[in-house]
Amino acid sequence: MSEAHNSLSSSGPAIILVEPQLGENIGMVARAMANFGLSELRLVNPRDGWPSEKARAAASRADHVIDAVKVFDDLPSAVTDLNFIFATTARQRDGFKTVRGPVDAGRMLRGRSSAGQRTGILFGRERFGLYNEEVGLADEIVTFPVDPGFASLNIAQAVLLMSYEWMKSGLEAETDTNFTGPERQPATKDQLHGLFAHLEAALEARGYFRPAEKKPKMVDNLRAVLTRAGFAEQELKVLRGVVSSLDYFSPREPRGAGYPERKARADRNTHTDRRPADE
Amino acid sequence: MSEAHNSLSSSGPAIILVEPQLGENIGMVARAMANFGLSELRLVNPRDGWPSEKARAAASRADHVIDAVKVFDDLPSAVTDLNFIFATTARQRDGFKTVRGPVDAGRMLRGRSSAGQRTGILFGRERFGLYNEEVGLADEIVTFPVDPGFASLNIAQAVLLMSYEWMKSGLEAETDTNFTGPERQPATKDQLHGLFAHLEAALEARGYFRPAEKKPKMVDNLRAVLTRAGFAEQELKVLRGVVSSLDYFSPREPRGAGYPERKARADRNTHTDRRPADE
Repeated sequence: MSEAHNSLSSSGPAIILVEPQLGENIGMVARAMANFGLSELRLVNPRDGWPSEKARAAASRADHVIDAVKVFDDLPSAVTDLNFIFATTARQRDGFKTVRGPVDAGRMLRGRSSAGQRTGILFGRERFGLYNEEVGLADEIVTFPVDPGFASLNIAQAVLLMSYEWMKSGLEAETDTNFTGPERQPATKDQLHGLFAHLEAALEARGYFRPAEKKPKMVDNLRAVLTRAGFAEQELKVLRGVVSSLDYFSPREPRGAGYPERKARADRNTHTDRRPADE
Repeated sequence: MSEAHNSLSSSGPAIILVEPQLGENIGMVARAMANFGLSELRLVNPRDGWPSEKARAAASRADHVIDAVKVFDDLPSAVTDLNFIFATTARQRDGFKTVRGPVDAGRMLRGRSSAGQRTGILFGRERFGLYNEEVGLADEIVTFPVDPGFASLNIAQAVLLMSYEWMKSGLEAETDTNFTGPERQPATKDQLHGLFAHLEAALEARGYFRPAEKKPKMVDNLRAVLTRAGFAEQELKVLRGVVSSLDYFSPREPRGAGYPERKARADRNTHTDRRPADE
């Protein structure tokens, strides 16, 4: 075993491109990898040689991946230090190999990496993929759930999906995101009822609830609309401000038009919607 | 509501590119969509106009997507018929919107489509994404779990990941694959024990188990190695053939070299490993 076998410097799978043709594709592969935290790219006999300026340009600043590329004369040499290899293929092959989807494969790679194994994923030539004997060197097969009527992933797209699933397999939950929206719990009911009271009083003053016998049903409907959204406290504050503005001002007498008394009343109503218990 | 609102012709989300610059990127987006069964592509004010020969070339035969592209002057016009919109963004935005990862977003889009809603996903300009007011037109935000140290997905890559998650959300199980390996259940124990007996007899005849007092431990180890792999019946047949070949022939007296009696014995042993009960 080579020294690399014991290296812990790179825990993610090595991406191994077998006889890639276009430098541009190699660069797009590097970019895809870098987005999802992979950095070890190996090339087997790249058609146009290495280094490649086209690859570097297409990598879009993933220079750390491009700089660390290793080139090999044949596939066996490229995988000597690895413990487990997936081959990617778009079509069924004869043979004894297990076939997995990318989610499953990402989880398996994560598990093996966590156990200290070195792993790799083989990607074939742009035009016709991997030869059977190359697939034969892999432990298992991974394939993508593409539309059978239009199966035309290029290598950079295939690498992107596997890199993405590798990253996902390391998330605490697969639904984790790098950032989140505001904490937005539904407001307490007394805050919601404050909006009901405010709005219903403003409408009552305008004769909205007519005929009178329909008022209970109208109130019911209005409250249902305002309840279903599950507004948070901050959202209720926005709505209270809207109601205040509509209630106290008019297009002919807008806020700031010289009606200090009205303005003060509106401001008071908007900004002091505390809970009664806090008063 | 427009007529399209009631159309069931396309159940997947519309992909909406806001002011895309390069025709090549539009083509790669079409190709990404087609791989995962999406076909409705909308462009808002594409910089280099439409149609685009560069887009068609990069679409790699996803002509049905390119032919059906619709172009709009502004974003509101592009989403009039939709019931629910995601905006993709790489960075946190102020505001009240829920943020989801792509797995979650794919499932939500599938649920809404199944309920007859028309959905869409917004993707921003190559250089700086979506303006805040454009994000504001969306219902929720979707973002990708990229490495924060290298977040550089291009629009075709972002579309690929969402298209993939859309397709995945429609699989019966997310680990489903378009094709599978052979059904490979572990063979029955009498088939495995047939290999043990065959191999151990061949080794015994060669004096492999020495010294004699170590034989039990050696047999134990050998059987452990052969058991852990969980060989299937077909795999055991391969191994039985290998043992037969090693056992009956030699480099100096290979199969087919004029020893019909040996060959017949070897063939019989390889091809008739039925269960005793079947004899």
